[in-house]
Amino acid sequence: MPHASRRAALRGLLRAADVEALLVTDLVNVRYLTGFTGSNASLLVHVDGDAASRFCTDGRYVTQSAVEVADLERVIDRAGPVVLAAAAGHLGVTRLGFESDAVTVDAHAALVEAAGAFVLLHRAPGLVARLRLVKDAAETAALRAACAAADAALADLIASGGLRPGRSERDVAYDLETRMRAHGATGPAFETIVAAGPHSAVPHHRPTDASMRRGDLVKMDFGALVGGYHSDMTRTVVLGRAAGWQRDLHALVAAAQQAGRAALRPGASVVEVDAAARDVVAAAGYADEFVHGLGHGVGLQIHEAPLLGPTGSGAVAAGMVVTVEPGVYLAGRGGVRIEDTVLVGPGGAEPLTRSNRELIEVT
Amino acid sequence: MPHASRRAALRGLLRAADVEALLVTDLVNVRYLTGFTGSNASLLVHVDGDAASRFCTDGRYVTQSAVEVADLERVIDRAGPVVLAAAAGHLGVTRLGFESDAVTVDAHAALVEAAGAFVLLHRAPGLVARLRLVKDAAETAALRAACAAADAALADLIASGGLRPGRSERDVAYDLETRMRAHGATGPAFETIVAAGPHSAVPHHRPTDASMRRGDLVKMDFGALVGGYHSDMTRTVVLGRAAGWQRDLHALVAAAQQAGRAALRPGASVVEVDAAARDVVAAAGYADEFVHGLGHGVGLQIHEAPLLGPTGSGAVAAGMVVTVEPGVYLAGRGGVRIEDTVLVGPGGAEPLTRSNRELIEVT
Repeated sequence: MPHASRRAALRGLLRAADVEALLVTDLVNVRYLTGFTGSNASLLVHVDGDAASRFCTDGRYVTQSAVEVADLERVIDRAGPVVLAAAAGHLGVTRLGFESDAVTVDAHAALVEAAGAFVLLHRAPGLVARLRLVKDAAETAALRAACAAADAALADLIASGGLRPGRSERDVAYDLETRMRAHGATGPAFETIVAAGPHSAVPHHRPTDASMRRGDLVKMDFGALVGGYHSDMTRTVVLGRAAGWQRDLHALVAAAQQAGRAALRPGASVVEVDAAARDVVAAAGYADEFVHGLGHGVGLQIHEAPLLGPTGSGAVAAGMVVTVEPGVYLAGRGGVRIEDTVLVGPGGAEPLTRSNRELIEVT
Repeated sequence: MPHASRRAALRGLLRAADVEALLVTDLVNVRYLTGFTGSNASLLVHVDGDAASRFCTDGRYVTQSAVEVADLERVIDRAGPVVLAAAAGHLGVTRLGFESDAVTVDAHAALVEAAGAFVLLHRAPGLVARLRLVKDAAETAALRAACAAADAALADLIASGGLRPGRSERDVAYDLETRMRAHGATGPAFETIVAAGPHSAVPHHRPTDASMRRGDLVKMDFGALVGGYHSDMTRTVVLGRAAGWQRDLHALVAAAQQAGRAALRPGASVVEVDAAARDVVAAAGYADEFVHGLGHGVGLQIHEAPLLGPTGSGAVAAGMVVTVEPGVYLAGRGGVRIEDTVLVGPGGAEPLTRSNRELIEVT
């Protein structure tokens, strides 16, 4: 039972934070701790164990929650956080942690009122996020499956001749999404990016009906959702023979990506990992054209901690799954990004997305 | 320019709330006020006008924001809310409203620090939401298109024989989504629900690989996303000839839905509208089997204000777009929900989803 193990691990953090319970209101955190996949739920995790803990969802999910959260006492109510805050006192809680990085100012006021005079609400941000930083076996398996679906979709797309002049960016995006589903995805992990020609210079371009043309750089940033877990990959190809500048740009970004992956070892600071890739780009004179961080954690959310970037903090640890995605964007001409979802192993980085990282000339 | 008009309307609310500017950090609200469609942005709307207002996004969106938000001064920074709070004092703001229903407790602490000693942060929840309650012409046009795509997809599905024993719920869900795209949707408005047989008794069932069987009730709850706007519709059909209880259940829910639409007039309280439909269900003895509210607003979000339900507040106004979706769920047997997305006109409700509401026996 990974969910029970996760709740047990959380209890260690609750004791360290000096609270008797945590009110979990972030829906993704509730899913992580219980397996519940509906759209409304909250959870009170008591340090004393599951018998003193409570799960709450609304009337739409009576049946689903009985199946997914069979191991916790369930309360059915629309106003979960308030109901659980009110119940805390009856469960012997005097110091109730809440997710101050997820609870709004107004919601906090309602919780204080519901908790009453004898239960003190205590800021406890990021506790579940800290657990989620390092993936357990169930999570890594889902992430591997999500990455494999994306790899297989790209291979199918290329093998079927789906990348050719005349097709639109939107066609290709939809094609990738359909193929990811055929390989087991419940859907795309995020809005698929396909950006051809000058559009490739827009880091987060949204696919249009514009036709792709021979000689275009085509940047594809996509991922699959499997069992609630996300994959994230970018490959940039050329339709036809690559021009010299395209080849050079791709080689530069590939070198930066390689440097980033090589730096991704347990104990390295996230700033160092970012710098390892960024320095390669900067040495070529393109520091200002690498306009985003090197990567981010991936899991139940497409973007989660840690941030690999100049403004990030903390160090890399074994079991983290992050993206490594340097990009260089030349406005009006084109851009290249190369991205993998990568598992940090004890000895270094293992890419979970494995598609060819060489420059592909689609002819 | 609908966005400039919306900002002008917001300024009236800012004056009434006695603040000189509003820091808009809810991304959907930023989109509503600016047209920006990226994934990170914040906005300072100054009562003095657009010249004193500021938009902020990060480096990924330099090009996109220049196109989409050409009419506002743009700041490029990852930490938008903090940067804009720090800028407020320089723009002559002494009382800065913030969205206390969207800003977390921790984010608020950071804003207070950034704003400095001379700028007072003032709770200002729900101001943009109040504007968004009533849709303008551009919004209504997008909602009509989103509803038309869903109607067309269902018609195609039925005409093509896509509803038949042996197909899986998942097949049908994907079929509907594909057909919505063919009719102009950028994607589904939410996770499509297809629930056959006893699954139809689960209000928010997720499609499975189970085969549909002759005699099954098949409940389909789906919608299209067009230009950022959502549609939401549910139809429940029978595969083959309907049994008596299926026919009766469908007729009951259809009568409740009709009563709800008839009650949906400007000036009616949202509780009254809900009650109009709920009373029909209760009179038939199924009060406990109608486990959710009657409906909700639809727009840039699939669920937005107002809530039509026993716990809702306020009155219906012309220009609102809401769902009307009573359902009765008989555990282990089956359930029926009938739902439309409806525009409240001066004289009454106009359904924007127009698919046949009679019981369809798919033979």
